[in-house]
Amino acid sequence: MSDTLKRLADIIESRKPARGGDPDKSYVARLFAKGDDAILKKIGEEATEVVMAAKDARANGDASALVYEVADLWFHSLIMLAQFDLSPQDVLNELARREGMSGIEEKAGRKLDAREQSERRE
Amino acid sequence: MSDTLKRLADIIESRKPARGGDPDKSYVARLFAKGDDAILKKIGEEATEVVMAAKDARANGDASALVYEVADLWFHSLIMLAQFDLSPQDVLNELARREGMSGIEEKAGRKLDAREQSERRE
Amino acid sequence: MSDTLKRLADIIESRKPARGGDPDKSYVARLFAKGDDAILKKIGEEATEVVMAAKDARANGDASALVYEVADLWFHSLIMLAQFDLSPQDVLNELARREGMSGIEEKAGRKLDAREQSERRE
Amino acid sequence: MSDTLKRLADIIESRKPARGGDPDKSYVARLFAKGDDAILKKIGEEATEVVMAAKDARANGDASALVYEVADLWFHSLIMLAQFDLSPQDVLNELARREGMSGIEEKAGRKLDAREQSERRE
Repeated sequence: MSDTLKRLADIIESRKPARGGDPDKSYVARLFAKGDDAILKKIGEEATEVVMAAKDARANGDASALVYEVADLWFHSLIMLAQFDLSPQDVLNELARREGMSGIEEKAGRKLDAREQSERRE
Repeated sequence: MSDTLKRLADIIESRKPARGGDPDKSYVARLFAKGDDAILKKIGEEATEVVMAAKDARANGDASALVYEVADLWFHSLIMLAQFDLSPQDVLNELARREGMSGIEEKAGRKLDAREQSERRE
Repeated sequence: MSDTLKRLADIIESRKPARGGDPDKSYVARLFAKGDDAILKKIGEEATEVVMAAKDARANGDASALVYEVADLWFHSLIMLAQFDLSPQDVLNELARREGMSGIEEKAGRKLDAREQSERRE
Repeated sequence: MSDTLKRLADIIESRKPARGGDPDKSYVARLFAKGDDAILKKIGEEATEVVMAAKDARANGDASALVYEVADLWFHSLIMLAQFDLSPQDVLNELARREGMSGIEEKAGRKLDAREQSERRE
């Protein structure tokens, strides 16, 4: 797995109040202390900021803020994964599974096409 | 970088119509052909699905669908990064930068606290 | 209540499959047939489209698409309210309650300030 | 138009700093002072809270918090409309236009079906 994701996940894990994380000192510990809804709200919030930053990047030709916002979205994804006792490796495994033997182009293509078909049928 | 993220990013890049991706055969090529808004709409959509899957995971004690939805969110993040000629490594670099020398607990803590303070002042 | 909201809510209510709505003929009946998650997903999707349309409106000086997207967001809000056996009048009552006796400027001001304070304390 | 929406829109309009709204005293004036992105971020945030409240409502059988969150979403929609010099009447007009002569069941049905078809073709 990405060393960065692994190190971040470890640090985030250590910020859980049950592991000694201090809500008065750590933003991550504070989110854990607030619980599910506060963390999930951040997912929606950061996704919105990604969309806005992408719009800005297209308008002004500078994508640096977009990188920052995607990092925020992934960072809060890591916090949410930890909140549900999941790891980024679980997500990477799922992504690798999709990539599969015959290449994502066909595997994911079929998979996602199936979802599209399903949505259309519905 | 995560081998999985790198391989996925390479495959996604190859699905760009300008690189020979075929919208009739590939879901990813189809999104690229539709352009920015179709891709950004997926970010908002997948973030919403993550939130719903997390609520379900808490209710039914099964987090497998949540892993699937986070994978979807990250997968579409990769497509968006490619659309803006960015790579997952750019995002991992930003995350590593935050982790910094003295540990994310203090660095990111200060950083994010500064943002909170700023939001409060506003 | 707004006659338009009331008429729309009545029409939406009549599209429930239990009231004879036909998923093969009606988009609204189709959403009801799919259930909660399909409807909630549309809330996230339409909110994202509002954000994108607002960015476009600012960039190109034409807000007509923004009106269209807010209408979509409110329309799907009405569908969601119906799905939970609520009416737009319930929402208008809550909004009127906030406006209250002394004017929203103070009432909502205090109310919302209290929420901000609460969020800050957390 | 709904008297409540009209009164709220008038009060919100009066909170614009250019009309004397005081960011130190009013939450709405504070949002206006922050500008587009702060307001749009709230749209994404409130939509996420609606989704979470709907999930909770289904789980615990109490929809009162859902009414509250939809009111929040509509309230911030009104702020966004004002920020772009639009009114809730513009949105209600668009909704009434869709309802049209032959009833929303067919008009909106055709309209929305056309969008679905278009999305499918893409």
